[in-house]
Amino acid sequence: MMATVKAEIRSGMYYDSAVLMQLQRSLAGLAGVQDAGVVMGTESNKELLAHIDLLSPEVQSSKPDDLVIVVRAEDEKTALEAISKVDELLTRRKSGIEQEYKPHSLETAAEMLPNASWVLISVAGRYAAGVAREALRAGKHVFLFSDNVSVEEEIALKAKSSQLGLLVMGPDCGTAMISGMGLGFANKVRKGPIGVVAAAGTGLQHVTSRIHQLGGGITHGIGTGGRDLSEKVGAVTFRQAIDLLSRDPETKVIVLVSKPPAPRVADEVLKAARNAGKPVVVNFIARAITSQRIDNLYFAGSLDEAAAMAVRLANEGVGVESNADLKLERFSPGQKYMRGLYSGGTLAYEAQHILSNYLPKVWANAPINKEFKIPNSYVSQEHTIIDLGEDEFTVGRLHPMMDNELRIRRLLEEAQDPSVAVIVLDVVIGYGSHPDPASELAPAIAKAKAAAKQAGRFLEVVAVVTGTDEDPQNLDSQIDQLKAVGAWVETNNEAMVRYVGRLMRVLNQTGAPEQTAKPVDLASLQIPLEAINIGLESFAENLAAQQAPVVHVDWRPPAGGNERLMAILERMKKQ
Amino acid sequence: MMATVKAEIRSGMYYDSAVLMQLQRSLAGLAGVQDAGVVMGTESNKELLAHIDLLSPEVQSSKPDDLVIVVRAEDEKTALEAISKVDELLTRRKSGIEQEYKPHSLETAAEMLPNASWVLISVAGRYAAGVAREALRAGKHVFLFSDNVSVEEEIALKAKSSQLGLLVMGPDCGTAMISGMGLGFANKVRKGPIGVVAAAGTGLQHVTSRIHQLGGGITHGIGTGGRDLSEKVGAVTFRQAIDLLSRDPETKVIVLVSKPPAPRVADEVLKAARNAGKPVVVNFIARAITSQRIDNLYFAGSLDEAAAMAVRLANEGVGVESNADLKLERFSPGQKYMRGLYSGGTLAYEAQHILSNYLPKVWANAPINKEFKIPNSYVSQEHTIIDLGEDEFTVGRLHPMMDNELRIRRLLEEAQDPSVAVIVLDVVIGYGSHPDPASELAPAIAKAKAAAKQAGRFLEVVAVVTGTDEDPQNLDSQIDQLKAVGAWVETNNEAMVRYVGRLMRVLNQTGAPEQTAKPVDLASLQIPLEAINIGLESFAENLAAQQAPVVHVDWRPPAGGNERLMAILERMKKQ
Repeated sequence: MMATVKAEIRSGMYYDSAVLMQLQRSLAGLAGVQDAGVVMGTESNKELLAHIDLLSPEVQSSKPDDLVIVVRAEDEKTALEAISKVDELLTRRKSGIEQEYKPHSLETAAEMLPNASWVLISVAGRYAAGVAREALRAGKHVFLFSDNVSVEEEIALKAKSSQLGLLVMGPDCGTAMISGMGLGFANKVRKGPIGVVAAAGTGLQHVTSRIHQLGGGITHGIGTGGRDLSEKVGAVTFRQAIDLLSRDPETKVIVLVSKPPAPRVADEVLKAARNAGKPVVVNFIARAITSQRIDNLYFAGSLDEAAAMAVRLANEGVGVESNADLKLERFSPGQKYMRGLYSGGTLAYEAQHILSNYLPKVWANAPINKEFKIPNSYVSQEHTIIDLGEDEFTVGRLHPMMDNELRIRRLLEEAQDPSVAVIVLDVVIGYGSHPDPASELAPAIAKAKAAAKQAGRFLEVVAVVTGTDEDPQNLDSQIDQLKAVGAWVETNNEAMVRYVGRLMRVLNQTGAPEQTAKPVDLASLQIPLEAINIGLESFAENLAAQQAPVVHVDWRPPAGGNERLMAILERMKKQ
Repeated sequence: MMATVKAEIRSGMYYDSAVLMQLQRSLAGLAGVQDAGVVMGTESNKELLAHIDLLSPEVQSSKPDDLVIVVRAEDEKTALEAISKVDELLTRRKSGIEQEYKPHSLETAAEMLPNASWVLISVAGRYAAGVAREALRAGKHVFLFSDNVSVEEEIALKAKSSQLGLLVMGPDCGTAMISGMGLGFANKVRKGPIGVVAAAGTGLQHVTSRIHQLGGGITHGIGTGGRDLSEKVGAVTFRQAIDLLSRDPETKVIVLVSKPPAPRVADEVLKAARNAGKPVVVNFIARAITSQRIDNLYFAGSLDEAAAMAVRLANEGVGVESNADLKLERFSPGQKYMRGLYSGGTLAYEAQHILSNYLPKVWANAPINKEFKIPNSYVSQEHTIIDLGEDEFTVGRLHPMMDNELRIRRLLEEAQDPSVAVIVLDVVIGYGSHPDPASELAPAIAKAKAAAKQAGRFLEVVAVVTGTDEDPQNLDSQIDQLKAVGAWVETNNEAMVRYVGRLMRVLNQTGAPEQTAKPVDLASLQIPLEAINIGLESFAENLAAQQAPVVHVDWRPPAGGNERLMAILERMKKQ
């Protein structure tokens, strides 16, 4: 079949992409037309057109600011006729929102809807940052759907917004859900106690949809744009959002979703999340983890699992361990180190691993990290874990699971050290082990605690007991003997070490974290959402469909799209 | 207080460490004695003695084969008197097991207890490999408690044992539980459906104790020694054990415990575990993971969590997805690739991540691994995932969540490719999205499937639908339309991608894995345990206490410990 391609290039025209799409569809639907393209003349669009055989030489020479209309039809006449219908089709297009007067500027829109604290921006990328700056100057939060905004612009916008206590969600933010209203692409999700922060558009949609499907609900879903967690941007919006949701009394559980952040940024974000005072489910897709839970942080393996975990935590009303159980007032100033005296190598190793989430450095004779190999196994320093079952202690000697002597000696030594707050022991019973280890360890613990008390200190001794009620030594009897002398006893090594980790973390805390950004006013989330929409009209239609007050701006590029003039205009506005 | 240190060195003596310990305690308990050491004269023991002020010049010059007796007492007379009591104390020592005749060799012991298929070895390290070789020659499994056995010896022993279909658990294997009997250090644990393999002694004790505490029980706990998962040893015993437990009908869930294995070894072990045909809980302490579940592999964050997961899986009777649901017979030869056509970037990214556990390489235009960036986004190759929401497709065009045109075009293209077995789609509904995407996608899917059918192929189309029942498009309506044309529909992206991964893995399988080791006879685990004990007498006592038939060998180093003579003797035995 023969075919002709005809094109028309219009310079300096601006239409939003929804309009172009409708136009393209209308043209392609005309009789005799095989395919049509109505796009701006960017390089990527030209590639796209080439792929579907719509790249004529004329189209090839178009510029990014040019509107390209191109049609492939069975003959030249049909093609030209189709192109000639463009203006008619453009005027026939009718608006989907009922709004008598459409303002042409943000300023006028803000006067029409004075309680609007959110501005949705979806104009072409090269105009987007300018509009966002205008919105920030007007004291509005920004939902920045537009993509093709440079990272430098993003950094500048977010520096401004964090000074002002405003959110810039985006650029390239596809989704947000604020106070029950969906912005951009968003699902209708039940209200509930889960707040979501996402640097991932469909990630946010999928997690919130799954939460709804599983019977849960959300407070807010805050998008940040996919680059927010990059090294350059530094998670400005993500951290604002975590801070905001941690202060929001309606939010009981927080979910964080992203592709793997830059490592330093991930550390900062997780540090902030750890101080949220609420359970936080983390799904940084494909980021390697070595612990699946760290205090209030729960790591999920997929979006679906993140949703399921959040719903479960919310349903079970899981809270966060308070520091009250640490009874910090018992310790004297200067008591800040832990000493682990283990008989079980694996337990000692696991303890180091768990503590790595709480303390930057734990010395050990069998270290998990070779840098932390203790110079002398017989002399503890700072935080130290000694595996007394290592060869250096057992050649020609009985294993510490059979013989408590060496461990008791060391326990009493450590108790003398005024910098020690906690001594950790394991008590492994069973066949082969000492017939009644607690009968020897308990008196030694009592002695160690008494010595510390006499010196005006409080010495916490914690012990994990490994064994069963059918073991010859009997688990309960061991536990009872240890508890009788005031030891903190667990049968769960992870639980015990996490308790020690929390205690050490607090005793070794240095100063409060610096607060650079101005906190976002919580009221922004508590009042019903009202918004101004600039760009894709459908976003205003969606808000209207959700009964949210919205004003759509009939926006045109300033200075007819002339960038030099635009820059001058903006500089004038700033004054 | 004044103190004198006196020592006596005895050459060529051999006692096991339990005996030395008893002696040391007895001496230290004598009136006037402050401290005592009774150890072999190794460098580490000398360090230990130095630390407790028992290193006299005489002791300093002792050799590893020497028995060192050293006493610190208030005066010289008391010290010398204490030392003179050594022989008396040694003869007074009475055995803890009732065994009328104690054979002096493994051979005699084997004649006394012909059904013994296990030999426990806890002699000093330098003799241990020789005894283990003897046990293997006699066709026995070895529980090798002894440490200080070189890695070269371990490699040689395990090469031998895997040829013979025998297990060498160790060296430095503290714990095993075979057929309800604890070997070495072991807890009394309820019988149940969980089998454990551990390169971690107290790890095995802690996990099995926790399983018991949580109401579960175990079939067997197989120790491997801490070095088994090193690059050099290559997990010989670990893989034998996984194979054995996967064939054991009593074992319904397997737990694997270790410190992080060498990466290549970890890959091999997990590959074996993945083919176990049972749920496998993995806790390789501190090893980084990026997926928390891969088919039948469940990754646990701690020993305690591993126990809890195993008990839960066993209680819930969780099995393994069979390949029957994949209906492989539907596909034609040559159909082996998947093509993902996504509109949601995060979903596309997560899909790549999940598939990385199934396929070595998935090409993508927005790749998770930069090496797999597809050269041309418009042309798929092998396994490919295209995010049609990427800028290259959307500049000046509507997003694929609003406009299905490009995706439908591509779907029909992919369907033409005879190497394609599965096409994956996401359908993201909600405000902002197309008002009824399934109404356009479903006919296209039907067309694609029909085209494949006409060409003699079966095309599987799977779709994840993201959205809620309150969305304008309605989730159920979307699902119904897609299902009506034969698509496989999920609302869980992880579940959908895992299905695709399983299917792709099977369609791309090349040959059966090579089997080098002789399988261990399952009967070894099914008959009541009988054992021969060589070394620490207490291990025989423990077996006797558990009602297991055991013969203790009154072992002495061959050739009086003279290594040259020992080597000659062993060479003679081999002949």
